[in-house]
Amino acid sequence: MNDAQRITGVLSPVVTPFKADLSPDADRFVRQCRWLLSQNVGLAVFGTNSEANSLSVEEKIELLERLVGAGLDPARMMPGTGCCALTDSVRLTAHAVKLGCGGALMLPPFYYKGVSDDGLFRSFAEIIERVGEARLRVYLYHIPPVAQVPITLGLVERLLKAYPQQTAGMKDSGGDWNNTKAFLDAFARSGFDVFAGSETFLLRNMRGGGTGCISATANVNPAAIARLHETWQRGDADAQQARLDEIRGTFAKFPMIPALKAAIAHYGHDAPWATVRPPLVELTSDQAKALVTELDQKNFTMPGLANRS
Amino acid sequence: MNDAQRITGVLSPVVTPFKADLSPDADRFVRQCRWLLSQNVGLAVFGTNSEANSLSVEEKIELLERLVGAGLDPARMMPGTGCCALTDSVRLTAHAVKLGCGGALMLPPFYYKGVSDDGLFRSFAEIIERVGEARLRVYLYHIPPVAQVPITLGLVERLLKAYPQQTAGMKDSGGDWNNTKAFLDAFARSGFDVFAGSETFLLRNMRGGGTGCISATANVNPAAIARLHETWQRGDADAQQARLDEIRGTFAKFPMIPALKAAIAHYGHDAPWATVRPPLVELTSDQAKALVTELDQKNFTMPGLANRS
Repeated sequence: MNDAQRITGVLSPVVTPFKADLSPDADRFVRQCRWLLSQNVGLAVFGTNSEANSLSVEEKIELLERLVGAGLDPARMMPGTGCCALTDSVRLTAHAVKLGCGGALMLPPFYYKGVSDDGLFRSFAEIIERVGEARLRVYLYHIPPVAQVPITLGLVERLLKAYPQQTAGMKDSGGDWNNTKAFLDAFARSGFDVFAGSETFLLRNMRGGGTGCISATANVNPAAIARLHETWQRGDADAQQARLDEIRGTFAKFPMIPALKAAIAHYGHDAPWATVRPPLVELTSDQAKALVTELDQKNFTMPGLANRS
Repeated sequence: MNDAQRITGVLSPVVTPFKADLSPDADRFVRQCRWLLSQNVGLAVFGTNSEANSLSVEEKIELLERLVGAGLDPARMMPGTGCCALTDSVRLTAHAVKLGCGGALMLPPFYYKGVSDDGLFRSFAEIIERVGEARLRVYLYHIPPVAQVPITLGLVERLLKAYPQQTAGMKDSGGDWNNTKAFLDAFARSGFDVFAGSETFLLRNMRGGGTGCISATANVNPAAIARLHETWQRGDADAQQARLDEIRGTFAKFPMIPALKAAIAHYGHDAPWATVRPPLVELTSDQAKALVTELDQKNFTMPGLANRS
């Protein structure tokens, strides 16, 4: 990979559709991803909001192959490939590189808590060495509220030193702007790409030298978020940010993943989209109605969704 | 399975040996498991202390087949089969039942935090239904310090009602005796088997109507722990408990998994045992020396370990 092609901008941790038997629905998945690309949003498939950790490695490999097989550009893909088990992470990451994916978004191994930076460095180093591809681009995934295992400044420093080519950037989903700023200040100038974990921080991230954002709500409000990324230096940027925050505020009143799926089901006229895999549960019909009512009041739309193919 | 054969007593979450290339060492694993059985301790393979969540489903299936293939009694095995992904849990649990394992120790899906009991019930119910075996015996694994997703009284009540045959018991590794006691008081009389998560609580658990314990240190101190289980009604039970606590206290001064492996490497004269998989790290040589020095001072031994075959 030529680094001129590094992934930038806005990506969606694409929600994963399921059939009635809870198996992944690859056809709906391909259609959704194609629509997101048409909205100028990249594909961070297999993220937290994708219920990726409710999918087996085999299921993820199959879905990724379906996307590439359908002609979607792998350079726009940054699949989540970090698993608890070293061997799973290696297998999935190697497969993503082989398919030509522009990056791999890697959770730290997240079962064991209180692990040392030595252990995490060794984990990422083993994956990078075993995959053994100069074109691998690793994006470290910091999401302590869920993974409980953080990505620290010291860890990034060691990885950048040992693997300057592969250590491409991070996603900060900690919800703490000061943490994002610390990573920007420390590493952005050396070409380490910091993605905010939500559009809430998109404008601040761009002003601070960041690269874009990877956000749950880019599943439902992609074009508007991508527009702020493209026009963040214009005079209306703060107004755009405020409008994005307003829409996100509605989704944040509900469990996020079921709410995203309920919105896609409603605005896409496609009821099966509401299905989630255990341990998550769908919104109740009252919750789904309340969500849509509030979104309608805010003149929210999902252009082109109902006609996607 | 005849319920007269229900697993009772003391089980070890067997530590998993790795080769220099970090692949599981099945030969050493079989020898260790055979030694543990000779010490009257059952095999809760693929537990937290087994680094099970650093192993892929395929690696676990291979190791389990090797144990059964070597002639070890599957009725004494309670492999950990609860994964993040529903499909992985189903696959591994079904395999364990097919091999004749006496039980399956099931973590809740542990990536997504703050999930509801409705979602957890649905998760366990899907697994039980999909495995579809009357002889499946599920032991729910409560370990909130690590999994962060608890097993509640309400969840057990619902599972017992829906699947009275398969909902066999639990392991409580929360470290809070009051919680264990609440489960004993609520369910022990209806045949729900409560295993303490450490021998620290073994005597209290037996006195409260519990079934035994599944403990990290049963890897290194198996016979003494099993003896307390067998003789808990004798006059020296409290003295036995105090002696067990003394030994455990030494291990608890170090990171538990590397310390267990360091002890096996030392007392078994088998250095490769010290290897752990990332994100864990081995004890430093100073730590390993301090561990052994203190154990020697306490006249700790591992009888038969060096000659196991």
